[in-house]
Amino acid sequence: MTRTDELVDDVRRRIASGQLMAGERLPSVRRHAIAMGVSPSTVVEAYDRLVAEGAIRSRPGSGFYVAGASTPFALQEPRPDFERAVDPLWVSRQSLDADAATARPGCGWLPADWMPDEALRRSLRRVAKGGLEGLVDYAMTRGSAALRRTLARQFSQEGLDIEPDRILLAVSGTQAVDLVCRFLLQPGDTVLLDDPCYFNFQALMRAHRVKVVSVPYTPSGPDPERFAELAREHAPKLYLTNSAIHNPTGATPSPAVLHRLLLAAAAYDVTIVEDDIFADFEPEPTPRLAALDGLERVIRVGSFSKTLSASARCGYIAARADWIEALIDLQVATNFGGPSPLVTDIVQGVLADGSYHKHVLALRGRLAKRRKEVGAQLDAMGVRPWTQPRGGFSLWCRLPDGRDATDLAKAALRDGIVLAPGNVFSPSLGAPDLMRFNVTQMPAVVLDWLRRTLSAPI
Amino acid sequence: MTRTDELVDDVRRRIASGQLMAGERLPSVRRHAIAMGVSPSTVVEAYDRLVAEGAIRSRPGSGFYVAGASTPFALQEPRPDFERAVDPLWVSRQSLDADAATARPGCGWLPADWMPDEALRRSLRRVAKGGLEGLVDYAMTRGSAALRRTLARQFSQEGLDIEPDRILLAVSGTQAVDLVCRFLLQPGDTVLLDDPCYFNFQALMRAHRVKVVSVPYTPSGPDPERFAELAREHAPKLYLTNSAIHNPTGATPSPAVLHRLLLAAAAYDVTIVEDDIFADFEPEPTPRLAALDGLERVIRVGSFSKTLSASARCGYIAARADWIEALIDLQVATNFGGPSPLVTDIVQGVLADGSYHKHVLALRGRLAKRRKEVGAQLDAMGVRPWTQPRGGFSLWCRLPDGRDATDLAKAALRDGIVLAPGNVFSPSLGAPDLMRFNVTQMPAVVLDWLRRTLSAPI
Repeated sequence: MTRTDELVDDVRRRIASGQLMAGERLPSVRRHAIAMGVSPSTVVEAYDRLVAEGAIRSRPGSGFYVAGASTPFALQEPRPDFERAVDPLWVSRQSLDADAATARPGCGWLPADWMPDEALRRSLRRVAKGGLEGLVDYAMTRGSAALRRTLARQFSQEGLDIEPDRILLAVSGTQAVDLVCRFLLQPGDTVLLDDPCYFNFQALMRAHRVKVVSVPYTPSGPDPERFAELAREHAPKLYLTNSAIHNPTGATPSPAVLHRLLLAAAAYDVTIVEDDIFADFEPEPTPRLAALDGLERVIRVGSFSKTLSASARCGYIAARADWIEALIDLQVATNFGGPSPLVTDIVQGVLADGSYHKHVLALRGRLAKRRKEVGAQLDAMGVRPWTQPRGGFSLWCRLPDGRDATDLAKAALRDGIVLAPGNVFSPSLGAPDLMRFNVTQMPAVVLDWLRRTLSAPI
Repeated sequence: MTRTDELVDDVRRRIASGQLMAGERLPSVRRHAIAMGVSPSTVVEAYDRLVAEGAIRSRPGSGFYVAGASTPFALQEPRPDFERAVDPLWVSRQSLDADAATARPGCGWLPADWMPDEALRRSLRRVAKGGLEGLVDYAMTRGSAALRRTLARQFSQEGLDIEPDRILLAVSGTQAVDLVCRFLLQPGDTVLLDDPCYFNFQALMRAHRVKVVSVPYTPSGPDPERFAELAREHAPKLYLTNSAIHNPTGATPSPAVLHRLLLAAAAYDVTIVEDDIFADFEPEPTPRLAALDGLERVIRVGSFSKTLSASARCGYIAARADWIEALIDLQVATNFGGPSPLVTDIVQGVLADGSYHKHVLALRGRLAKRRKEVGAQLDAMGVRPWTQPRGGFSLWCRLPDGRDATDLAKAALRDGIVLAPGNVFSPSLGAPDLMRFNVTQMPAVVLDWLRRTLSAPI
């Protein structure tokens, strides 16, 4: 404990015990320094800390005073909401606000200790030593030039050659999709989503007040025949999908399916948003809508939240040059720019020094192993995969004996487990006995709970 | 230069000179290590860096290959757009994308060296040493509990006593306003804005497709009579304003005006968003709509972008408890949560150790001095302040001899100076001869340019 700590504690104690009352003036810095036998700068530091924590207030030119009767600030920590309907926001909110004791096999991210700890800290330290501008200034409207160059290089390796100025950095992958929706959609428009699809796409469409029409999703991708029929029938403005390691199924569409989707999109003038957030989980890159199309009617969106950090948040949009200009205006109007520059500097640091590449290679192997282990355990309970994903952390599985996934998720929440039941992913509510499992968030206690619960009579 | 650097350089040179061709296989790690007399791990590191920068590619199980013919990645840096109409987005985009040589007396932020350099770096280093969760996990839906407690304490000192769970952290002050607009507004609704007001409020209202009706702003705040008339006549859903150190005028409304605004808002059921982004520039706190109203129909919004860092971006919303719940759903749907947790940890660090408080006290004095200096020089050119602000960096001034501010701004841009002409702030375009000057962004060269230009015949 430093002398400053002692002084801070002493004042706190005297306020708590009533020796110092609300509104009472504290001794001057000089007087207090003499009384306590410390230097005036130690008192200044202690008083500053007490001001920062709200115990005392400073009145310029007049001194320091004990703050007024304080409100109780015991934070009401969010608790699991057992009453909330199991809607598309249910899994997000339960997962994000779960405490450390809650297991989250329903969540859409990796445990902290799967992330590149040292590489991130190293990058953070570099930024802490770097130029002041990066720490305090706004970014340029497109975001970090270095990170956009890195992304353009990566795209080029995937067969998509574009200039970095056709990339706009966004606050997150979700905000990237949202921004594109603001650009392309008006309330009342129709949007095509996969059935099943990432539940937050449905929540986002509600926020945009648009009508959702859903395309049946098969193990080789969205059904291209149905896609064409629905496009003709409903004239949707937009089709929003993941084309590799689809959420929640983990499927990756075949090149033939992608080609037919693009033909139908061209025939009925549908713009496609390809959310490629799981791209780096793929062991080998497969064709993408964006690369096939050359970013004419496809907009590519992605982020590093799943493979690098959801705390250093940053997403991106790659699109037609004239669309990027319009998206910049929208991002300035709605957020005065994109992601935190210091965050994009941290991300760029991890990408540029090669540690991201190394991390991702290791991650793929570790994930393949874990999918196999958990898959075998689920299989023994009669929980069967709908398809075998090429990568990623999700297994989309059918429950045995027509079990209702929503009932199971409600029961699990009471036992401190957040599950992701099928219907939250299905715009048509057509997945009542399916469940998305995150294999990296399934310790033995979760598998035991599932085994016990599924073997009990309904 | 380390051995790794040398290896990286050597491969780059051989690719550039054509010794290594696109598609050619590089020596294996072991072979290359022997050939170069280094350890295999040095070669691995060099190859990883070359992969990260796109010079070579790895094929798992097969080795490393020279990447294909590369696209030219010379980044087209954004340049001043002389043709773009001087609309509400004009100043933002010119200011954000200006290069280092451009002077920005029209921008709305402080120069980097006015910000608390050491305090930020210290906080960053602490975060770099802190728990892994803070570096990689998503935040809870409301954002950092510690930062919300700090904010609640600060609000309490300003007479607004609320629990921290009535605060929602946002990505930025602008995103906070945007989120509230998504919650309260539908396309076609009417919104009241001050005339003049922050130009980005107008851009944001366009993004929301709402109708803007403007309230004349006087040196003691918005005209409360007109406010009441317009509220009755147009039934606006929302009134969006800054109530202290108003942007662009720098005025602070009188308590009587605030009270009358609240009465009229209650009478005609108008919700008020009080954007308090300049609060910490005030030498002594003045009454606020949020505090007077107790957050019943007023929503308080703010951020630390102006006083601490626009790179560590983070804003907040304080509102009714049920509204916060709805805003959380909207923020999850549109951004899967709020600001980067590592950013909120950095901000909280600077606030909690007392350095923010110290910085803000010093800043106020420095700003008062600079406003006086620049004000005197402008006065000598016949440029007269519309009012004397109590704090902040802006002077809202009338140009001499009916000079047109937009013409002046266009001429300035050609000479590498971004100005903020009056009409971009005025929904009615009623400020043709007014200009907002940022006194912290006006070096001698800018003042000289103004003196020369204003003394020349029109």
